[in-house]
Amino acid sequence: MTPHAKGEPPTGRPQPPVRTLEDKAHLVTGSGFWQAGLPDGPQVILTDGPHGLRKQGAESDHLGAARSVPATCFPPAAALGSSFDTALAERVGQALGTEAAAQDVAVLLGPGMNIKRSPLCGRNFEYFSEDPQHTAALAGAMVRGIQSTGTSACLKHFAANNQEYDRMRVSAEVDERTLREIYLRAFEDVVRFTQPEWVMSSYNKINGVYASENHWLLTEVLRDEWGFEGLVVSDWYAVADRVEALKAGLDLEMPTTGDRSPDRVIAAVANGELDEEILNRCAARLENYLSSRPTGRGFQFGELQQIEHHQLAKEAALKSVVLLKNEDHALPLEASASVAVIGEFARSPRYQGAGSSRVNPTVVDPALAHIEEICTGLVSFAPGFTTSAEPDGPELLAEAVETAAQADAVVVFLGLPEAAESEGYDREHLNLPERQLRVLQAVREVHSRVVVVLSAGGVVTLPFYADVAAILDGGLLGQAGGSATADLLFGKQSHSGRLTETIPHRLEDVPSYLHFPGDQGRVSYGEGLYVGYRGFDAQKTDVLLPFGHGLSYTSFDYTSLEVAETDTGVEVKVQVTNTGPRQGREVVQVYVGKPDSSVARAPQELKGFASVELEPGETTTAVVDVRRQELAYWNIARHGWVIESGTYVVKVGASSRDIRVQRQLWIEGENAIGPLTGESTLGDALAHPAVGDDVHNNLMVSANNKHSSSLFSAEGLIRMMSSFPLNRLPLFPKSGMTDDDVESIIARTQPSGTPNPQPKTQ
Amino acid sequence: MTPHAKGEPPTGRPQPPVRTLEDKAHLVTGSGFWQAGLPDGPQVILTDGPHGLRKQGAESDHLGAARSVPATCFPPAAALGSSFDTALAERVGQALGTEAAAQDVAVLLGPGMNIKRSPLCGRNFEYFSEDPQHTAALAGAMVRGIQSTGTSACLKHFAANNQEYDRMRVSAEVDERTLREIYLRAFEDVVRFTQPEWVMSSYNKINGVYASENHWLLTEVLRDEWGFEGLVVSDWYAVADRVEALKAGLDLEMPTTGDRSPDRVIAAVANGELDEEILNRCAARLENYLSSRPTGRGFQFGELQQIEHHQLAKEAALKSVVLLKNEDHALPLEASASVAVIGEFARSPRYQGAGSSRVNPTVVDPALAHIEEICTGLVSFAPGFTTSAEPDGPELLAEAVETAAQADAVVVFLGLPEAAESEGYDREHLNLPERQLRVLQAVREVHSRVVVVLSAGGVVTLPFYADVAAILDGGLLGQAGGSATADLLFGKQSHSGRLTETIPHRLEDVPSYLHFPGDQGRVSYGEGLYVGYRGFDAQKTDVLLPFGHGLSYTSFDYTSLEVAETDTGVEVKVQVTNTGPRQGREVVQVYVGKPDSSVARAPQELKGFASVELEPGETTTAVVDVRRQELAYWNIARHGWVIESGTYVVKVGASSRDIRVQRQLWIEGENAIGPLTGESTLGDALAHPAVGDDVHNNLMVSANNKHSSSLFSAEGLIRMMSSFPLNRLPLFPKSGMTDDDVESIIARTQPSGTPNPQPKTQ
Repeated sequence: MTPHAKGEPPTGRPQPPVRTLEDKAHLVTGSGFWQAGLPDGPQVILTDGPHGLRKQGAESDHLGAARSVPATCFPPAAALGSSFDTALAERVGQALGTEAAAQDVAVLLGPGMNIKRSPLCGRNFEYFSEDPQHTAALAGAMVRGIQSTGTSACLKHFAANNQEYDRMRVSAEVDERTLREIYLRAFEDVVRFTQPEWVMSSYNKINGVYASENHWLLTEVLRDEWGFEGLVVSDWYAVADRVEALKAGLDLEMPTTGDRSPDRVIAAVANGELDEEILNRCAARLENYLSSRPTGRGFQFGELQQIEHHQLAKEAALKSVVLLKNEDHALPLEASASVAVIGEFARSPRYQGAGSSRVNPTVVDPALAHIEEICTGLVSFAPGFTTSAEPDGPELLAEAVETAAQADAVVVFLGLPEAAESEGYDREHLNLPERQLRVLQAVREVHSRVVVVLSAGGVVTLPFYADVAAILDGGLLGQAGGSATADLLFGKQSHSGRLTETIPHRLEDVPSYLHFPGDQGRVSYGEGLYVGYRGFDAQKTDVLLPFGHGLSYTSFDYTSLEVAETDTGVEVKVQVTNTGPRQGREVVQVYVGKPDSSVARAPQELKGFASVELEPGETTTAVVDVRRQELAYWNIARHGWVIESGTYVVKVGASSRDIRVQRQLWIEGENAIGPLTGESTLGDALAHPAVGDDVHNNLMVSANNKHSSSLFSAEGLIRMMSSFPLNRLPLFPKSGMTDDDVESIIARTQPSGTPNPQPKTQ
Repeated sequence: MTPHAKGEPPTGRPQPPVRTLEDKAHLVTGSGFWQAGLPDGPQVILTDGPHGLRKQGAESDHLGAARSVPATCFPPAAALGSSFDTALAERVGQALGTEAAAQDVAVLLGPGMNIKRSPLCGRNFEYFSEDPQHTAALAGAMVRGIQSTGTSACLKHFAANNQEYDRMRVSAEVDERTLREIYLRAFEDVVRFTQPEWVMSSYNKINGVYASENHWLLTEVLRDEWGFEGLVVSDWYAVADRVEALKAGLDLEMPTTGDRSPDRVIAAVANGELDEEILNRCAARLENYLSSRPTGRGFQFGELQQIEHHQLAKEAALKSVVLLKNEDHALPLEASASVAVIGEFARSPRYQGAGSSRVNPTVVDPALAHIEEICTGLVSFAPGFTTSAEPDGPELLAEAVETAAQADAVVVFLGLPEAAESEGYDREHLNLPERQLRVLQAVREVHSRVVVVLSAGGVVTLPFYADVAAILDGGLLGQAGGSATADLLFGKQSHSGRLTETIPHRLEDVPSYLHFPGDQGRVSYGEGLYVGYRGFDAQKTDVLLPFGHGLSYTSFDYTSLEVAETDTGVEVKVQVTNTGPRQGREVVQVYVGKPDSSVARAPQELKGFASVELEPGETTTAVVDVRRQELAYWNIARHGWVIESGTYVVKVGASSRDIRVQRQLWIEGENAIGPLTGESTLGDALAHPAVGDDVHNNLMVSANNKHSSSLFSAEGLIRMMSSFPLNRLPLFPKSGMTDDDVESIIARTQPSGTPNPQPKTQ
């Protein structure tokens, strides 16, 4: 398959006909709820969603209300991200693309790749992570997979759409460095390195301007800086003004608005409000895309593919479950044990979230049935609770206690009811429902080694953490989650998933807590760069379980870390040995910090990861290539990425707070202090390698000679003066400096002047 | 004395002569380091500082390096603020004004009233508090006192100058609501209610624009909105461009720049860059001020006044010391006890900070001498440590231990060395010096009831809190601090000061921690409104000692809280009884919260306080009037203050976390949801009293009739749709709404349309 929409139609195809203003105005808004294209030309279907196809029939909506064709429900991104397995994500993408192609869907609206700024965001289950590097790796792999089938991927939601509350109006107030390093970063990487064919603009405003009307975002950053060659589509109903959106570079408004938007566009061209050239560019991109779509891609989605894809969904679920705790080897369970299974979710699994991503699954595996299949001992079940809005009667709890008391092992399935998390609204707290906690408490009173399985699309607090024997975080695992969970419980496989979101002790500890979800039409991203583990680390906040955490039925040792600069970045190599009794997969995580940075930074940031599968006793070398660009920070004054010269600390470990080996590395980058200007401070000059010593000596002479009556030491005076801008120093008699002195100092730091001495290297 | 500079010269005085361009250009910049005025006209002296006069001789600087005339060093604002005593602050202001007048100083550069955003700010000792209401009350009183003598007060540093790092260049990046409610609020109150004659613009930028060049700040807000009728002077060397500063409304640049600024102004007028009318306005304000200064105010500062002012300084110190802890009545000490006094600060007190506020005191009371005076038992002394940069020898510690071991009581004086906190740079941590902590530890090992006296201008962490018997937080107490401390230790008076800054367990817990002091020329005020206790409360962070905390040698009960709305606001009355054995002063604090506010708010905010002095067994009624305006929040859309209708919780207590009595009060204000617009959301419409029920019913009908195949309940669908802007709803078929429906809904919420039903009242 070849990429499309490169601005030129593929060779051999007919040049699109020149269109009338009316045609062009109609072309840039959808022709139906899920369709784009003109009546007399090719049409394409764009449809949800990120972890399974949601192709609806005549009755359509963007909120998941109406039924859709059967499709495989893979683990949503929140779970799939926990696999830290890009090859797996690529295969899932391929399967999604195949199912789309079989249904004649051109554009699959995914992956979703917003950063989990707050665990409360109702749509977090559709996103990968609180970390942009992790998100970029998983989303990029998924795009490669989807597009390998000729189906187009569509990155969403671009950008800073990190909450559902007031999502169609709220302005994300966020400084550019934070945007660049956190909220745009994963989009940038996937655009630059994977060239998705579509990007979806989000509902919200960014610093006061709707994403769909944001020229800076959709044109200057996305196209001009990152080299995006695809098309931009709006989220459904995200366009407030079609003309402003065209000016910003939004190619396709969705869904259809009848004649409303076309009429607005036609009038705007007629009255000069809109330059027709702008319309032409968007229309041409659409024409080219439409006319160059492959037809008859020959994909089927029959029974065979359904079985294959279900297997893939199960493999993904197996790699996505995170074993949070496993005290005294409470897991795996013996197949011959008598097992009490408690909790409605064991029978009626929660495996996906509500909203536009909701899939009509081909089949669903409940955990209970698969436990019964594997377990040769007695399996008893009690629902324990309902997810109804009505209170439960006391008999449910009593039955659960009775069931648990008689079994060798007890597995309690807890989770959030479907209504607790959804597209369209956020959660208000991180608690599991009271009634579920009561059941768990009651069961714990009759059984000392309780295993908990969690089903929720977002983080929940775990007040019972210390009191249960084991916890599996199942997330929302897709349609095969139940069988995967059963396999893991009985040790048919070992867990290898890792947390992509920190589990805090309290919601109040979350760095964005004070600022979420905002009010008065705005939300301040006040925590800045300090999202997720970046904030917990920077504030040295104790957490229940850190980013990257996840246990296994075996154990791994890390030795012989090697860190070397290459032409493209840094190669990190580490020996990993399976030191435990079983085969297993280890997710090796590479974090980098720059403790002496000239700018504020998180203490460490994930810069790459690898997963290795090892037999007991086996050793292998895990290799992670960190792109040089990953070391850069966003420099405000230069309005670009800057890699600081200096010492970086490369840390390798099994989680962000379980670093096993680390090394320092000197990276030759840019000098933190560039040429001085009049606005540079005396402090800058004192720290500048080219002039610092001289400036200091002159000041000392001046301070000691002229102001012998000073109450301070000369050093004290210099310290107090260090914030003086150079161009204001001559005004201050105690500086002893003239305008000429200052000019000369500045001149000596210019590239054309006295060359800077080379910075020291280690 | 009459206020000056009202735009018109006082009656009876000659009209100022019409000046040449050259004269005017010279008039708007200082004529000397501390002087303003033209050579042929009246001159005035402006000089530091906020807690004592710093009138220098021929050798001048703004950093406190050169000597100044003797003056009374009152407790700096950090200590005086702890008194929560506005009458006292007014008397201190009066004494300051008197000393200034005696030295022919027209303008006293104070009070300093920036909010303590971070405990690290090097200049916090010059500021009152982490709370704007408290700051406004104390600063306003001080201005009244100063100006009652004919000396002009000068509020500083206007505005958002909350750190020393990069202070002459850094841009405070802060949203308007935070500016209005936190950083401008105290300035606003003092300008509106006390009319200071001067305001000093600060060094820093605010959202990218220098305060000195900030038309919004200096003209639109200060003059147009608040009605300021005085003059604006720059902080010394704060003007980057005299022409831009004139345009912004800065009347006087300080200090002199020779001909540099005047020449720049003359050229700018000549080439049309500067409208001469702008220059005329500033020059006229200066002329009027200069020509209307009272002469020969007849104040003396001889020996008698020196003694009186020293007594006042002592009274202020007595009311400013905060008793942080007093376990098992370790204090007061018996006068007949043998007392070991440990710590260099007992002999060589730290009583003021470094920089422009440094006073040449008339006399200094060391605590040691005054303890020796009061104590009839044996007083022994060991310095324990030095404040030198060199390490101390071991003999100092040994001597301290030996001294302590033999005494009935041990008082250890700890504190920050002078170099640790100063104008011009910030602290980097909150720790006391290691060597001091070692001495304390060693002394504690030989004595079980150690009393600690702290001398520091800012918060220090207290790792020894649990292990000592009593702690006096002396702050920096001015020249009479030592005798005041001695009086308090021996119970000649009881403590009554209260913390004006939270003492956290760790620096990392401070709400501004992640964002202080910024980098790349900017500092994000990312914590927004959540400064100090507002943030600790909002995040439910445990603190060592809360805002408002302070113990006494007696105890107080609070009963019979009455809360009533008045014409001007809320009158809060509470009965306070001295239930302990001694006379004492209680600081009664009134906090207000609005738990169900439609906007994010701190859980509670200080809205007023009173202090009552009571004999043992005596009861009195403390009355606090809360101005109605104090209940308002800054509404972004309306760009103004809004008082929400609803229930407010009025809490009265002895600290922010020791609330004794509370009541709810219904306040009739504005309806949180005003008239709807097309940009209002469906959620807004559903919550609107005029249309909410109808909109809901119609949606339910529509959802149930037309979409029976929906996978959701109608309620679920409505919840997911609630973020839809009204004007985009007709595009979405499931809404069942037409453009006409939306127009009608909006119309019904307009004041001219169907009248809104009155909101319910309690």
